[in-house]
Amino acid sequence: MSNCLVAQSGGPTAVINASLAGVIKANQLHPIYEKVYGGIHGIEGVLADELYDLTDTPASEIEILKQTPSSALGTCRYKLKRGQEADFVKLNEIMDAHDIDVMFYIGGNDSMDTVDALSEWAQQHGSAKRFIGIPKTVDNDLVPIDHCPGFPSAAKLACQITHATSLDYDAYTRPEIFVLETMGRDAGWLAASCCLTGDVDLLVLPEVDFDKDMFLSEVKQKMDEKGSCYIVVSEGAHYADGTYISAGESANDGFAHAVLGGAAQTLKQMIIDAGIAPRGIVQDLSRAARSSNFAQSKIDVDEAFQLGLSAHMRSADAYFTAKVVGVRRADTKDGSYEPEFFAGPASEFANYVRNFPNEWILPRYQGVTDEALDYFRPLVAGEPAIIYGDDGVPKTIVPYNLRQR
Amino acid sequence: MSNCLVAQSGGPTAVINASLAGVIKANQLHPIYEKVYGGIHGIEGVLADELYDLTDTPASEIEILKQTPSSALGTCRYKLKRGQEADFVKLNEIMDAHDIDVMFYIGGNDSMDTVDALSEWAQQHGSAKRFIGIPKTVDNDLVPIDHCPGFPSAAKLACQITHATSLDYDAYTRPEIFVLETMGRDAGWLAASCCLTGDVDLLVLPEVDFDKDMFLSEVKQKMDEKGSCYIVVSEGAHYADGTYISAGESANDGFAHAVLGGAAQTLKQMIIDAGIAPRGIVQDLSRAARSSNFAQSKIDVDEAFQLGLSAHMRSADAYFTAKVVGVRRADTKDGSYEPEFFAGPASEFANYVRNFPNEWILPRYQGVTDEALDYFRPLVAGEPAIIYGDDGVPKTIVPYNLRQR
Repeated sequence: MSNCLVAQSGGPTAVINASLAGVIKANQLHPIYEKVYGGIHGIEGVLADELYDLTDTPASEIEILKQTPSSALGTCRYKLKRGQEADFVKLNEIMDAHDIDVMFYIGGNDSMDTVDALSEWAQQHGSAKRFIGIPKTVDNDLVPIDHCPGFPSAAKLACQITHATSLDYDAYTRPEIFVLETMGRDAGWLAASCCLTGDVDLLVLPEVDFDKDMFLSEVKQKMDEKGSCYIVVSEGAHYADGTYISAGESANDGFAHAVLGGAAQTLKQMIIDAGIAPRGIVQDLSRAARSSNFAQSKIDVDEAFQLGLSAHMRSADAYFTAKVVGVRRADTKDGSYEPEFFAGPASEFANYVRNFPNEWILPRYQGVTDEALDYFRPLVAGEPAIIYGDDGVPKTIVPYNLRQR
Repeated sequence: MSNCLVAQSGGPTAVINASLAGVIKANQLHPIYEKVYGGIHGIEGVLADELYDLTDTPASEIEILKQTPSSALGTCRYKLKRGQEADFVKLNEIMDAHDIDVMFYIGGNDSMDTVDALSEWAQQHGSAKRFIGIPKTVDNDLVPIDHCPGFPSAAKLACQITHATSLDYDAYTRPEIFVLETMGRDAGWLAASCCLTGDVDLLVLPEVDFDKDMFLSEVKQKMDEKGSCYIVVSEGAHYADGTYISAGESANDGFAHAVLGGAAQTLKQMIIDAGIAPRGIVQDLSRAARSSNFAQSKIDVDEAFQLGLSAHMRSADAYFTAKVVGVRRADTKDGSYEPEFFAGPASEFANYVRNFPNEWILPRYQGVTDEALDYFRPLVAGEPAIIYGDDGVPKTIVPYNLRQR
């Protein structure tokens, strides 16, 4: 009996560990692998032979792992590039050395491309090793799934913070604007989801080229009408020429992605400079919103866990490789939400960005259509029962000490 | 039978409406007033005769009011100053016009001073009107109480965000520092509470004059030892000469308080400039942390509600004026937490700042003592059962439309 490997990559989410828990649990229910190894810090750690045995994780710890945010195995931004032969050979050697036949990779677009590239390499080199992807991203920008694990919980927290800060903002009489900034580099799903609570006056998405004059005229109209204007902006909002609203504040990360942030601050200053409001409040959700365990969506945790189970179970088929598991929205008679699990080619998940649909965007920054709200609503409803520690914080578990290695 | 008035002032909290709910509920249980009027936007709205009848708020709405963050009646930053005779006369006239004998004011230090000033004025002018304070502030800086309603919930959310962002930070291998900024102008209670989860490496409080060299040497030591450093800073941290760490980013609010923010950003840049880490992450809790209803502490909600009840019940005594209700920590045989309700002179609550105790601060930014953690622990433990709406967000109620008036 051979072994399997599971690793995590890209930005942490609230439920990426639920998918990890699913893989571990599935192998306890049906031990098709002798060992379930966790690769520490994604491909980066795997290439450095940093593996950790997760096979016999106790049931009580699996339950806590499901509610542990961030990436319990650590993450990386290292991308395995086609043509970097040495990396592919090294990975193969490490898998051989540990008798690992199958690798599960939990991640976003880039990681699904890694799954595709590794499968392709194996095929070309007559290797029987298999690579299976489990999707996650708070950005919700993966095709061809209905939604991506991690997004519903991020959206739920974003909605909660939108509503709470909106009430806080409304409690004052002084004229000022409020700008909330969410993550979302290329796709505005997370920013758009904030409209669910009915508090958002204006919404600025990366899907619509930013028109400063039109935007300022809408802000002015809201301020004239009701003395307040609650704005949500996605970090990746940009002008028609591609310049980010936040340009000037940007740096680069290891993936040659711009490190964004500052769009809200820029909008606030723009509004003040235009003389529309004398002051403004900026709230940047940043890290606090993407991997919290105090606002998990129940459907998100359940589906992320079940996708871990599904990936493991489907891997019993010796020809199952270069695939990613996912969730579609089933057609139901009463229109109620029902997930449908499937698997598709990794190439279809990799390197495409699914934007927030244009037909769901209202003109002049007025938010989103009812159809969009109908899409979001079932995803954020419901809360899992959380196990709290005596420090008043949800219990978490990180099986491997990531920093002190 | 005469009427009473209740109003809110200062910064919103997660439980200020639970105190309001307590006053309304108490009068339903024992109708010593014919009407319970809500003053809209604190003293500012009361002076403009903006009152709203809350007497018959349905029980179901009272329950939701208890979990509604922010200030449901609106707030203000207008301070009634001794000697501004016109305001005192006007307020008296409005209370007369509505047959109001007693005013409950829910607020922080400044509001408790208003209670004191109004009572004093009434006494000097032979008026039988009475003024009673109910404390709230996320800063926890009121004397002579053990803790202030609003603080436990803010601390609970701060702890949850500290732990979640710390896990997120630890998932990466790249060398960078993390700086979390909390509210806390003069007192570091909220920042200090973040130490409860065991994730904080260095803590920068307003109670300790900032020593840049010592701080940087501690950051360097953490980075050398374990490759990471999670820092929490209170917005009001300052140098020995009183200059805020964030100086340069400050403006002024209507109370002549500096509007702070930017301490975390400043520390991050300081560390990068010193060559200790090439990059850093900043998380500013700001508004998101002070009035959320998805991380309420059960003890906080219960006590805030009970202080509302207590204020109303004690007001049955015709000599009860110029007083503030509060909570002390009772001596229990087993050391378990037990609240003890009391009332004290408003003058003792007003205009003093209770700093985080020096004897609870570890040297060289190393956090707080076990005694401090023992103080915090019972306050943040326990969660109320939250009523959710079908948008996945806790239900809220604002009886009066604050913006569209």
